[in-house]
Amino acid sequence: MSKQFNVVGIGNAMVDILARCDDAFLSDAGIEKGIMQLIDMPRAIDLYSKIGPAQEVSGGSAANTIAVIAALGGDTAYVGKVKDDQLGAIFAHDLRAQGAVYETALAPKTAEDETGRCIVLVTPDGERSMNTYLGVTEFLTPDDIDPAQMAEAEWIYLEGYRFDGPDSHAAFAKAIEATRSAHGKVSLTLSDPFCISRHRDAFRDMIRDGVDLLFCNKAEALSMVQRDDFEAARAELAAEVDILAVTDSENGCFIHQGDQSWHVPATPVEIVDATGAGDAFAGAFLWGITHGADLPTAGKMANVAAGSVIQHIGPRPEANLTALFKENGLA
Amino acid sequence: MSKQFNVVGIGNAMVDILARCDDAFLSDAGIEKGIMQLIDMPRAIDLYSKIGPAQEVSGGSAANTIAVIAALGGDTAYVGKVKDDQLGAIFAHDLRAQGAVYETALAPKTAEDETGRCIVLVTPDGERSMNTYLGVTEFLTPDDIDPAQMAEAEWIYLEGYRFDGPDSHAAFAKAIEATRSAHGKVSLTLSDPFCISRHRDAFRDMIRDGVDLLFCNKAEALSMVQRDDFEAARAELAAEVDILAVTDSENGCFIHQGDQSWHVPATPVEIVDATGAGDAFAGAFLWGITHGADLPTAGKMANVAAGSVIQHIGPRPEANLTALFKENGLA
Repeated sequence: MSKQFNVVGIGNAMVDILARCDDAFLSDAGIEKGIMQLIDMPRAIDLYSKIGPAQEVSGGSAANTIAVIAALGGDTAYVGKVKDDQLGAIFAHDLRAQGAVYETALAPKTAEDETGRCIVLVTPDGERSMNTYLGVTEFLTPDDIDPAQMAEAEWIYLEGYRFDGPDSHAAFAKAIEATRSAHGKVSLTLSDPFCISRHRDAFRDMIRDGVDLLFCNKAEALSMVQRDDFEAARAELAAEVDILAVTDSENGCFIHQGDQSWHVPATPVEIVDATGAGDAFAGAFLWGITHGADLPTAGKMANVAAGSVIQHIGPRPEANLTALFKENGLA
Repeated sequence: MSKQFNVVGIGNAMVDILARCDDAFLSDAGIEKGIMQLIDMPRAIDLYSKIGPAQEVSGGSAANTIAVIAALGGDTAYVGKVKDDQLGAIFAHDLRAQGAVYETALAPKTAEDETGRCIVLVTPDGERSMNTYLGVTEFLTPDDIDPAQMAEAEWIYLEGYRFDGPDSHAAFAKAIEATRSAHGKVSLTLSDPFCISRHRDAFRDMIRDGVDLLFCNKAEALSMVQRDDFEAARAELAAEVDILAVTDSENGCFIHQGDQSWHVPATPVEIVDATGAGDAFAGAFLWGITHGADLPTAGKMANVAAGSVIQHIGPRPEANLTALFKENGLA
């Protein structure tokens, strides 16, 4: 069985607006530090008028993950909704230029909403605080899912943030059904602890019924099972899926499969901008397991990729990850 | 006499699309290395489809210069034309966020052309090759010049690239007249040797009649006077203006005023991306002379600012220039 895609990602398509600020700016602007908060267009306009000079780069959590897999030479596609506007063109270009197939219904120029954007504010400690105007990407529907494309995926990768869209649960269900019917596998990232608190039951149902590989970080793991014992939380989540991969910042990651588990330490690096760390982790992990790596090796690759992306401003790796893997004895 | 602005800049308003490539890509795509070439929208779309993942940052030569002066705490305004589209909003935001006053007639959403953009391709040697779709900024007219604003400028700063616009010569003439009538001074940058070859006579007339301070690099100086003796070229240009400031890459700069001249060496730095070096030079020089620096000191500041901007991707300084000046004993 040879499929066209190693991984097909589905998520919020958006362009990041990256700017630096200090902690006082965050509190003055009423921004909760370190998390993703949803904002409407008036708030986006107001906040944008207050931030300093910025740079624009394509983002979107699952899209960043797909970009990593494509940069490593994996076969990928991405489904997410942009408008036929300048930011939409930027988003589509950057994925295609990285080698990913980008296919989705394009919202027309006349659509009321615009392409989504995320005002990412980076504080001197490297933490990022995200302010997301979803725009048209909120309205990803089952019609945007092509079952034939999902059937060509070894893995699909679903972005937890997308649970904030009204029709996305149905879209995800359609994608899962099409993928599993063709013997493909399903991975999911929990994305954000506050996103989990908004959609915990829906996450739980999906994990139990249809997820083979679950990605999350420590805070998300604890939020998902509503406990404060990290080891117990991992055990509880690991029992629900085939593979569990949990990141724990500078402590690296924990991988679980059945009775086996591995703690894979990370090499400490200076954090310039944490944006995209989890996305790069998932991308390198998925690339690893679809290219013959065992789980702890995939965990090492994932740590290296995450460590690379946090050493510069911007959510997608700038370094040559293939070369980095070689330097670390991983390829 | 206290005026509202240290410097008012007039130039091509555009957003830079920055991507890396190798020399083979440039020749395959028919791009002349190291210069600015004008392209139309079909060429912009075709070229964009071929380049790798990119980042978008506000650019425009005179706008970069104004951003430097504003970042140093100078009082500035900028005149240049964008459309009421997403790239136009990005351009205006980044100048205002830097503290510059941005005022110009905004081309409406219904305008046929879009906000200008420049596809900047950076090769491994740090050289940048620019492909400019002017868009609405081509149509800056005398109506866009507010004489009252020019009268409030100690200096106006005119971008040579703007000579490519049909009505811009008249717009520049109007700005010069309003500035000089109010005892303000006029600075001009020659911008590009190929731009000079397209408009040499117009440049010459303006320099003789109305320019107090002329900025150029070595190639532009030679092209302007059509000689190949650098010292003679400087002498010829210096005779036409009050102050001449000529950059010579890693050799620093030459400043001329009347019978006096100074060679100000630069500290060697690693070149990551040469984009914006000349713009930063002019900005720091103008900030210096409007804040009490003598000419050789302003030249040192200008060298430091240019050296800072070429050490990263992007056309505007990311470092704290005020702190850099202090480190170099310049403030």
